[in-house]
Amino acid sequence: MSVSHASVHPIDEVPTTEGGGGGGGGDQNNNNNNNNNNNNINPPPRVRMKDIQGMPGTSGGLCLRVSQFIFAAAALAIMASTSDFPSVTAFCYLVAAAGLQCLWSLSLAIINLYALLVRRSLQNNRVVSLFTIGDGVTSTLTFAAACASAGITVLIDNDLGSCGQNHCVQFETATGMAFISWFTTVPSFLLNFWSLASR
Amino acid sequence: MSVSHASVHPIDEVPTTEGGGGGGGGDQNNNNNNNNNNNNINPPPRVRMKDIQGMPGTSGGLCLRVSQFIFAAAALAIMASTSDFPSVTAFCYLVAAAGLQCLWSLSLAIINLYALLVRRSLQNNRVVSLFTIGDGVTSTLTFAAACASAGITVLIDNDLGSCGQNHCVQFETATGMAFISWFTTVPSFLLNFWSLASR
Repeated sequence: MSVSHASVHPIDEVPTTEGGGGGGGGDQNNNNNNNNNNNNINPPPRVRMKDIQGMPGTSGGLCLRVSQFIFAAAALAIMASTSDFPSVTAFCYLVAAAGLQCLWSLSLAIINLYALLVRRSLQNNRVVSLFTIGDGVTSTLTFAAACASAGITVLIDNDLGSCGQNHCVQFETATGMAFISWFTTVPSFLLNFWSLASR
Repeated sequence: MSVSHASVHPIDEVPTTEGGGGGGGGDQNNNNNNNNNNNNINPPPRVRMKDIQGMPGTSGGLCLRVSQFIFAAAALAIMASTSDFPSVTAFCYLVAAAGLQCLWSLSLAIINLYALLVRRSLQNNRVVSLFTIGDGVTSTLTFAAACASAGITVLIDNDLGSCGQNHCVQFETATGMAFISWFTTVPSFLLNFWSLASR
């Protein structure tokens, strides 16, 4: 954890809870204030990003990571519990992608929890870049797997009407869980990308 | 076109071709310089973003839009030329999504060409927000359609092995074209989002 640095002020003291949409102008004001402080105080404090809820190191970020993990694990477990998923490539791919999403989200949830407990900020440039790339890759894979499974499920259910000899309910539930897991990954990705661009 | 404004300097005079990755710090310096100029010159020039190639109003952006249109139109034409695509929901969805992508990319290519011809900048906050949302929606729809079609195509080809009575080659080509169209939409979306966040 050598890439994290101690918070300049405790995280729960100044909770800024505004959304990502209006953060651009505010960040520049914040930077200007910090620059002004640099002129007055010696040694200068590090320029620090605002903690928008959902970013790494915030309680909102931890909630997002835990939901991603839960829904990806549910998709993995439900799909793996059917006996005939290995016969369809898209369902095997869903299992693999949900497994990757599980591992990624669990790791980041643990890092986030550690950062919250020891009150360290994760707003380091390298760390946020790594999280952004990881979120982009895993969310794209999860979304692709969910869409492919949805295509097959709709084919079996609506087009062929052969739900009698297939586990349609399990397939559809696993696909839905994968979609929800993707929905909770996208805010993480967009917030990380936004914070990377706005510094 | 009331939302566009005349370029402060001609677009082809100062082409800044650095990538999106290193643009954050440079933008702030740019803003600071512009703010300093505001103090000296009256009337103040509008704060203007750098023209990274691929953004709206640049020749790179026009190239991206034209490729998006060509590949989406190819996917639409190839899929619609098969006789049995309406029997599969995912293929119908691919036709619809590729059609929407065609319309969106063609409109933006025309706007981009107009902006290049009359040397107007499209770096307006509202315009870039609109482009970002539109790119996000159309790229997500195109990617979802491509993944669903890929799932079905792999099912027909690999899992069932029934390419004899299906138009596998056309299905696979249309899916590939949709994927390439998505690949060219993602840079537009990321660049627009980056420029929205970095101002």
